[in-house]
Amino acid sequence: MKNNAIYIQSGGPTSVINATAYGVISACKKNKDKINRLYSAKYGIKGLINKELIDIFTLDEKQIDLLPQTPSMAFGSCRYQITPEDIDDTDYKKILDTLEEYKIRYIFINGGNGTARACKEMKDFLDKQHYECNIILIPKTVDNDILCIDHSPGFPSAARHVAISISELAHDIRTYDTGLITTVEVMGRNTGFLAAASIMASKGGNGPDLIYIPEVVFDNSKFINDVKKVYEKKGKCLVVIAEGVKTPDGKYLFEDIHGRKSDTPELNMGGISPYIYNVLTEHFTCKIRCIDLGLMQRCAAHTISKIDVEEAITLGQLAVCEALKGEHGKMLSICRISDRPYKTEIKLVPIEMVAQKDATLPLYYLNEEKNYITSDYLDYIEPLVGELPVFAKFDFLG
Amino acid sequence: MKNNAIYIQSGGPTSVINATAYGVISACKKNKDKINRLYSAKYGIKGLINKELIDIFTLDEKQIDLLPQTPSMAFGSCRYQITPEDIDDTDYKKILDTLEEYKIRYIFINGGNGTARACKEMKDFLDKQHYECNIILIPKTVDNDILCIDHSPGFPSAARHVAISISELAHDIRTYDTGLITTVEVMGRNTGFLAAASIMASKGGNGPDLIYIPEVVFDNSKFINDVKKVYEKKGKCLVVIAEGVKTPDGKYLFEDIHGRKSDTPELNMGGISPYIYNVLTEHFTCKIRCIDLGLMQRCAAHTISKIDVEEAITLGQLAVCEALKGEHGKMLSICRISDRPYKTEIKLVPIEMVAQKDATLPLYYLNEEKNYITSDYLDYIEPLVGELPVFAKFDFLG
Repeated sequence: MKNNAIYIQSGGPTSVINATAYGVISACKKNKDKINRLYSAKYGIKGLINKELIDIFTLDEKQIDLLPQTPSMAFGSCRYQITPEDIDDTDYKKILDTLEEYKIRYIFINGGNGTARACKEMKDFLDKQHYECNIILIPKTVDNDILCIDHSPGFPSAARHVAISISELAHDIRTYDTGLITTVEVMGRNTGFLAAASIMASKGGNGPDLIYIPEVVFDNSKFINDVKKVYEKKGKCLVVIAEGVKTPDGKYLFEDIHGRKSDTPELNMGGISPYIYNVLTEHFTCKIRCIDLGLMQRCAAHTISKIDVEEAITLGQLAVCEALKGEHGKMLSICRISDRPYKTEIKLVPIEMVAQKDATLPLYYLNEEKNYITSDYLDYIEPLVGELPVFAKFDFLG
Repeated sequence: MKNNAIYIQSGGPTSVINATAYGVISACKKNKDKINRLYSAKYGIKGLINKELIDIFTLDEKQIDLLPQTPSMAFGSCRYQITPEDIDDTDYKKILDTLEEYKIRYIFINGGNGTARACKEMKDFLDKQHYECNIILIPKTVDNDILCIDHSPGFPSAARHVAISISELAHDIRTYDTGLITTVEVMGRNTGFLAAASIMASKGGNGPDLIYIPEVVFDNSKFINDVKKVYEKKGKCLVVIAEGVKTPDGKYLFEDIHGRKSDTPELNMGGISPYIYNVLTEHFTCKIRCIDLGLMQRCAAHTISKIDVEEAITLGQLAVCEALKGEHGKMLSICRISDRPYKTEIKLVPIEMVAQKDATLPLYYLNEEKNYITSDYLDYIEPLVGELPVFAKFDFLG
């Protein structure tokens, strides 16, 4: 008997999530003997609840073929959180209704940490209702905070964007012989993987001097002292700071600044640069620049990592295979076998394990001062980011 | 008799000024029968005054070959303004001393508007001193404000960076079905060429809704009304604003905000986004994002325009040829013969003509409301920016 399938994009955009969409679509097309129709839900979970589906097989093939190079989320997403069944089962009943009406058996959910938790609850509900289906979670992230996986698609491209940008900004900074402190804010709510990726630029002599990550308490006076030490020696200082750094009392720095709460679904992360600027101007008289790499980190298709696109497509394809084999309530996980040559294998992990908490950067990647990343991290990040552009390097500007 | 030459980088960095350096260097090497040594001045004019020269022919060839793909200024620059001779002739005497000591006859100055004026004064001084030399100005810019030229090297790459970024951000913006106003601040002190380049993205359906340039007075209430009209219709609004927009009383908006004076050489341009954010939050309750594309516009080697690199190299090479022919006090100018196919010829323009004032965007490129750019501008900008990446386009997200 032929069944229908649905592919849902969830959470925030990445540069390569549409590559995963392409993987799912191409695999479903190859399995038309088992899959009759493939739907997507317009604006993610919302579309599933409100029965707004897109019939993917009817879409223009040419546009589908462009998906792997198209950033953001072609089918839309939402920050909506499904109301837990024990509080109000309206959302879940609507979801069940959509699935039944459209005879959907295979459910592919493409999302991050928050989605893993939603996915687990949906699975529990549908199992309890004895609704026969196969739910597979396909990971995507920008800041690499998903558990039980070497890295999630989306992260390598964001990391590449950060590494290239830092590498180029380092050149801009060297232009003048006047004193200059530059800070670059990068994404990363609870994890420093992305901030740490900036050390890729150090291979060409264009790395930052200091790196601050959310895993380490951000203390203003320690920060100022660190910058002072570098500045006194070099007359310049290039700092990378993750947007999610936390104050000594455990609050996000941006909460402190904007009075924004970290538990709202519509949370605007980041925006710590103006605060950092003020802190620095209190202690330095030289020129200070505080740059926010912002949204380009999650939508810059022009700095996509090759391996990232390939893996994103592969996970989409394998999700279909595994669902057809009968797997249910699992996430596809990339497991690394070796760094050089870069080798991985794909395994399945129960969603419950993924949904527990956020992954964080292992602290052994930090230097003793906890303000820089050791070169060990290069073994991890280099295969993901790929080769950086090579620039001319002379020694006369220092 | 063999003479020596000097190549000086001046003003602010661009993504392709080192390509011009490469052009000058390769042409000088080809003319070693006429040019004995080629120097550069460390940190621009400062190095010329302080006699800090770099002997270019002794540098590593491999690094020289990497110059065309290396952003910013390999030899450094400064924002120093030479003291006018009639006030204090110390600077000029030092310059003359350097030139005499190093037997420099050919002077290649690579800079923008401010440099054109400095160049003219230096020429006048050296002529008066009967110092035999040939000064050639090679144009470079980010915001395209140099007179007597179709466009200056540096601008096409900055324009490409803006066009690609807008095109990708437009995808990010479509992700959710919730209301959203996004503004993107781009470079452009007195000219809107760069802001206008964002309409390149409209070809793929990813253009902005509104564009504000320095040539048109920026009026808060007009701005709010414009945004309201778009937002009421679409539920979203994407705005591009040049950093140099001016208030109805003729001041730069950033002067109004930061109390910074526009006539200081160390002027920090831009930074209007926080102000725009505040203006918008007073009138809209939806989510508002104000993004500053910042320094990446002038150092993103990874979004370089192919034609820009080629032209930057060519101008460097031709500068050497023209100086050897005996030209003096001229700028190399790109003159456009046709848009499609793109054809140009290189002419010489007296520096006096260039140094007069800043070039501005012709107002016939504006729509009637003066808040958008007409498609006529595409004829001008497309050949410079080149093809943009093609993305998948569906109609279901609007």
